[in-house]
Amino acid sequence: MKEPPRAQSCPASPAGHATRHVIRAGPNIAYRAELDELAQEVPVALEFNGISHATLLATPADLEDLAYGFSFTEGIIRKTSDIYDMDIVETEQGLIIQVTIASACLNELKLRRRSLAGRTGCGLCGIESLDEVRRVLPPVVSLVGGHDPAAIVKAADQLRALQPLHLLTGATHGAGWATNTGEVLFVREDVGRHNALDKLIGHMLRHSLDAADGITVISSRASFEMVQKAAAARMPVLVAVSAPTTYAVAMADELNLLLAGFARGSLFTVYSHPEYLGNKGDHP
Amino acid sequence: MKEPPRAQSCPASPAGHATRHVIRAGPNIAYRAELDELAQEVPVALEFNGISHATLLATPADLEDLAYGFSFTEGIIRKTSDIYDMDIVETEQGLIIQVTIASACLNELKLRRRSLAGRTGCGLCGIESLDEVRRVLPPVVSLVGGHDPAAIVKAADQLRALQPLHLLTGATHGAGWATNTGEVLFVREDVGRHNALDKLIGHMLRHSLDAADGITVISSRASFEMVQKAAAARMPVLVAVSAPTTYAVAMADELNLLLAGFARGSLFTVYSHPEYLGNKGDHP
Repeated sequence: MKEPPRAQSCPASPAGHATRHVIRAGPNIAYRAELDELAQEVPVALEFNGISHATLLATPADLEDLAYGFSFTEGIIRKTSDIYDMDIVETEQGLIIQVTIASACLNELKLRRRSLAGRTGCGLCGIESLDEVRRVLPPVVSLVGGHDPAAIVKAADQLRALQPLHLLTGATHGAGWATNTGEVLFVREDVGRHNALDKLIGHMLRHSLDAADGITVISSRASFEMVQKAAAARMPVLVAVSAPTTYAVAMADELNLLLAGFARGSLFTVYSHPEYLGNKGDHP
Repeated sequence: MKEPPRAQSCPASPAGHATRHVIRAGPNIAYRAELDELAQEVPVALEFNGISHATLLATPADLEDLAYGFSFTEGIIRKTSDIYDMDIVETEQGLIIQVTIASACLNELKLRRRSLAGRTGCGLCGIESLDEVRRVLPPVVSLVGGHDPAAIVKAADQLRALQPLHLLTGATHGAGWATNTGEVLFVREDVGRHNALDKLIGHMLRHSLDAADGITVISSRASFEMVQKAAAARMPVLVAVSAPTTYAVAMADELNLLLAGFARGSLFTVYSHPEYLGNKGDHP
């Protein structure tokens, strides 16, 4: 892995927010006019070689990272160089990220969509069926006893202070990547937790950084899609500040991730593959 | 409006959770084996008259409410009686809700999808473009000075104690509906905040209760889609425990909703249409 640059501490004014006049009110007070900072949420359409693929509601910051990360974790590209070019176009309704991908990737995407249409039998667009939910992914490779609990606690703790947009607005989620000693090196934020993780993964891809060699921390809950995205990026440890769901845990079991939740203070809960945790105390 | 039944206080064991053996760990402790309750998250596919429409990741409780609410807030049905029948089928990959709707609704749905396919020009399925993001909705009708700040505070406060699944798992969001005096009458929970709101709306539709005559409270942040769904159900006041986004506020401005956020303790912040708040203190 290349020597990565250090994460910056919170910039005073991160991208992705706007000021609004608001009223602070309550039953027994004189209402106060205040200024508040809101996280921006805009519709972002992703087009691949001119074909609309999906529309996300996202915070307009680090959009190139988002496009790389989304394309990768959704299996549309296999490597960074499958993306040839990218333009971001502003329209009245939102932003369009126009991505040019290798024609092999585009053909595969078309085939996948056509076969789904066939199977579910509607012939119209917009189909989503149960077959599309889970992607076939190889299990992540991890090291028994390889992850220090002190590093997990440190990474979760550092993440809190490295979310400038959240500190300003209270409305965004953060995804961070830390070294195996718990030093958080990169954080990305978004109103959507999937987007925050995709931005982080996209950033690492674009800088040829190996996500497999460290700890991923998220400020949110861990749902199935968060585990699937982390596994697609070969991330061996996913640490959530809040709770996981049953499906997230089942996926982490199957894809060989150490999934931790409720990482607060000096404790956390391990939901899958505790054998990858080092320094095991009296764990049976 | 019919006289609605009172909300039950938390049942000891709500639907939608499962037990898991976990390890509680940290850098300086002997690891402890524990039992934890996790919120269930399963893929739920919605089919209309045999045609796959969308797949949600949802908590398998109150699924009929979810189907009614989703169909209504997404504009697929216009009234409860547009749904003729509903079956829930378990498969290995998840649940399928098979909804039979009036053929007029189905035709409209097909037309909408075909025209979208034409406009974005791909001809394959799975298209989503910027045109699909916003629905055309009439503004909500509200009463100037009609909402008591004490009721808003009370509703947000009551919601906290009426989320049994959240109390058990920490992983779910709640959406509640309160009278204009702040008495919370119905709450629905889900791992997805949109689903929780759709379930609430579906429940009210199924019981012919008028969502327009009260206060809606959500345990989460307020994003654009939450405001759009509330407006589709004619809810005049949406109160979020956490922050709203810029797009949520813009939609609330436009659709005439009083949107409040950060409703904690005895205060809240009004982001749009403060004129619908009563007892205005010295608000300019």
